[in-house]
Amino acid sequence: MLKVEIMTTGEEVLSGQITDRNASWISRFLEEQGLAINRRYTIGDRLDELVQQLTVRADHADVIVVNGGLGPTDDDYSARAAAAALGEELVLFPAWVDKLHEKFAKTGRQVTERQLKQAYLPASADLLDNPRGTACGFAVHLRRAWIYFTPGPPVELHKMMRDEVMPHLAQRLGVPDQVFVKKVMTFGIGESRINDLTATLTVPANLRLGYRATFPVTEVKVMGAGTEAEVQAAAFLDQLRTLFGDHIIYEGETSLEARLQEKMIARGFTLATAESCTGGMIASRVVDRPGSSAWFHRGYVTYTNNAKHDMLGVPMDLFERVGAVSSEVAGAMALGARERGGVTHALSVSGVAGPDGGSEEKPVGTVAFGMATPTHLVTMLLQLPNWGREKIRIMSATIALDLLRRHLEGVPLKAASDFVVVRHFEERAL
Amino acid sequence: MLKVEIMTTGEEVLSGQITDRNASWISRFLEEQGLAINRRYTIGDRLDELVQQLTVRADHADVIVVNGGLGPTDDDYSARAAAAALGEELVLFPAWVDKLHEKFAKTGRQVTERQLKQAYLPASADLLDNPRGTACGFAVHLRRAWIYFTPGPPVELHKMMRDEVMPHLAQRLGVPDQVFVKKVMTFGIGESRINDLTATLTVPANLRLGYRATFPVTEVKVMGAGTEAEVQAAAFLDQLRTLFGDHIIYEGETSLEARLQEKMIARGFTLATAESCTGGMIASRVVDRPGSSAWFHRGYVTYTNNAKHDMLGVPMDLFERVGAVSSEVAGAMALGARERGGVTHALSVSGVAGPDGGSEEKPVGTVAFGMATPTHLVTMLLQLPNWGREKIRIMSATIALDLLRRHLEGVPLKAASDFVVVRHFEERAL
Repeated sequence: MLKVEIMTTGEEVLSGQITDRNASWISRFLEEQGLAINRRYTIGDRLDELVQQLTVRADHADVIVVNGGLGPTDDDYSARAAAAALGEELVLFPAWVDKLHEKFAKTGRQVTERQLKQAYLPASADLLDNPRGTACGFAVHLRRAWIYFTPGPPVELHKMMRDEVMPHLAQRLGVPDQVFVKKVMTFGIGESRINDLTATLTVPANLRLGYRATFPVTEVKVMGAGTEAEVQAAAFLDQLRTLFGDHIIYEGETSLEARLQEKMIARGFTLATAESCTGGMIASRVVDRPGSSAWFHRGYVTYTNNAKHDMLGVPMDLFERVGAVSSEVAGAMALGARERGGVTHALSVSGVAGPDGGSEEKPVGTVAFGMATPTHLVTMLLQLPNWGREKIRIMSATIALDLLRRHLEGVPLKAASDFVVVRHFEERAL
Repeated sequence: MLKVEIMTTGEEVLSGQITDRNASWISRFLEEQGLAINRRYTIGDRLDELVQQLTVRADHADVIVVNGGLGPTDDDYSARAAAAALGEELVLFPAWVDKLHEKFAKTGRQVTERQLKQAYLPASADLLDNPRGTACGFAVHLRRAWIYFTPGPPVELHKMMRDEVMPHLAQRLGVPDQVFVKKVMTFGIGESRINDLTATLTVPANLRLGYRATFPVTEVKVMGAGTEAEVQAAAFLDQLRTLFGDHIIYEGETSLEARLQEKMIARGFTLATAESCTGGMIASRVVDRPGSSAWFHRGYVTYTNNAKHDMLGVPMDLFERVGAVSSEVAGAMALGARERGGVTHALSVSGVAGPDGGSEEKPVGTVAFGMATPTHLVTMLLQLPNWGREKIRIMSATIALDLLRRHLEGVPLKAASDFVVVRHFEERAL
């Protein structure tokens, strides 16, 4: 088994000003390639510490992935540290100079001397391409270890790990047994219940089970290597599907929004949104997908009662009678958005996101939802925990999108959730 | 200066299944107490690796905070690792046995043998109280270092760091000088130009300068300790203000949205948004702040031409004449939103976020903006780099909000930005 270590650099990581998401991502990525991580460490932007750590660990690890410190600024020390640890000079790599000129020419800018710094690498380095940024990566071999230097910006890092680091590593250290990762994404079941549920299954010895909670969803993944394990995984996945049922919002490397887009377009459906407490978040999540214009037409962000009345035709007397956060208002919002938007489907949300605005009857976390389809109006009033404004808004947006998914897939609309109390649910024909 | 290190343990951290928020929190907490962190590392739940790492680092650090591995389960190795590194036996600490009985009695439970494991500590350990949990912390002295073992659950960790670790540490190693961090947040200047600019200043020896880029803004911070340094920092901050000018979008621990909210409410202004490619992101960012209903009234997410016409009154012939991504359409969107929304101010965005939809004249990254105020209409057509759909959308939302900030602060509306080419800018009286 290869000994793999991850080293992240940067004062801002060390001082806790940013959370080290790159280290977690690299860990997960390498695990999915069949490589287990032995250690992780973070060093500040201090040349001597970087050199010392590289020198020490190069005797213990087969692979070290270093992240950060490739940029053009004075505290980007990675190349200098690598050169010092190797006992080499930094030399100019003309291949990267050319790339820099190419990249800058596209936006009509000149390559500055400072930018050129990024083309200086240790003499023995293998250059790693970075099509998404101006800092190239590089690989060096020091005693026992292959050391890979990667950039900090996540989009650059992810592409480089996939397209440059893994092929380079596979060529030199051998390809690990073909590994696979199968993922199902769940919504509405807590991590501890997922644990309890999966504990009722027998996991085949060739398979490993992993979890990862990223609010408000939890991913369950089945990992293994080789064809035999893959066959076992297929059967095991069926057991997971039975276990989690309609709480699985998608499988594999996609997203809830992508899945909705596919189904809506396939059936010629179109969507409008009417949002109060989510304030445009649902629309923005839908629009973030390329191609969304084929099915998403418009959104109404109606943050005041007046806007709900004026933009969506919600009767003014409803607000006094039942309040803006009510099944009635959410229903009227959805109907208004569907009709005025000239679309087949509409989603609406109106809730108390807090921290103020709650009452005894409608505490913070009370959220009303509506969905208008060509034939039905669905309304519901849910009680979410008071997780704080941001999480209440994110959870609400996901609940609304999940309601549309359930409708499109023909599974029960009224979902049992570990986090939410259903105070009211109604589905009526139009 | 004390050398401080943080060691987190646990396979789930190492494998990236959970992000290591405790390490970031401990870093920030200690930095705020004037202690800079030298290193951070993560070790899996493997006894030999833990013992080895403690043994090695005890010669280099003055303080090591270890997090995790205190629990009752078999893979909680911290106490055993500490004892092995010290060459001591684990002994039962009756003080913690009593506490355990007390805690369990409250909920009518019996202390199990497994739970009792948590009362076994290295013979020379100082016990650290954990009023929020069943695992006590402890401190041991090994060669150069004081090593503090703390629990994984954040609420337990935070309390123990404040009430137990800091007093213990201050008594033995002295209290550090009071430290401070002053921050200015910049927008529109690249990190490398920020570096070039600050390189023209002389940073007083007592102060440290830091940067942190979180797209699309870059934070510049001035750190130091003691009153003398704080006086120097005040003067240095004035130099930074001159240097960055109206690129400073705020100072300290606030946000662009918070600053806009304060200024809009103070002047009795109200806002509506009209969004195409940002698709509700501007509205959602504004609504994410508590209290936003006092100034944000409504948003129009007009993703189709038809929606722009129908919801905002944009003349249909404009789309054919100049295209949806044009100063003219953005201007008409802003005017429509202001008038129909019954607000004092409106912001609009219409752009090509890609990856498709670009043309030679309007490539991906072409974005039109509009701002309608009680007296003026501002329109501009900008060329952003093709950073990808997500970044183009985030950048566009920030540019729109920054336009409003510039208007409210009376600084030039047409901002020079390192990333953006201004293709058209116009301000006309209404």
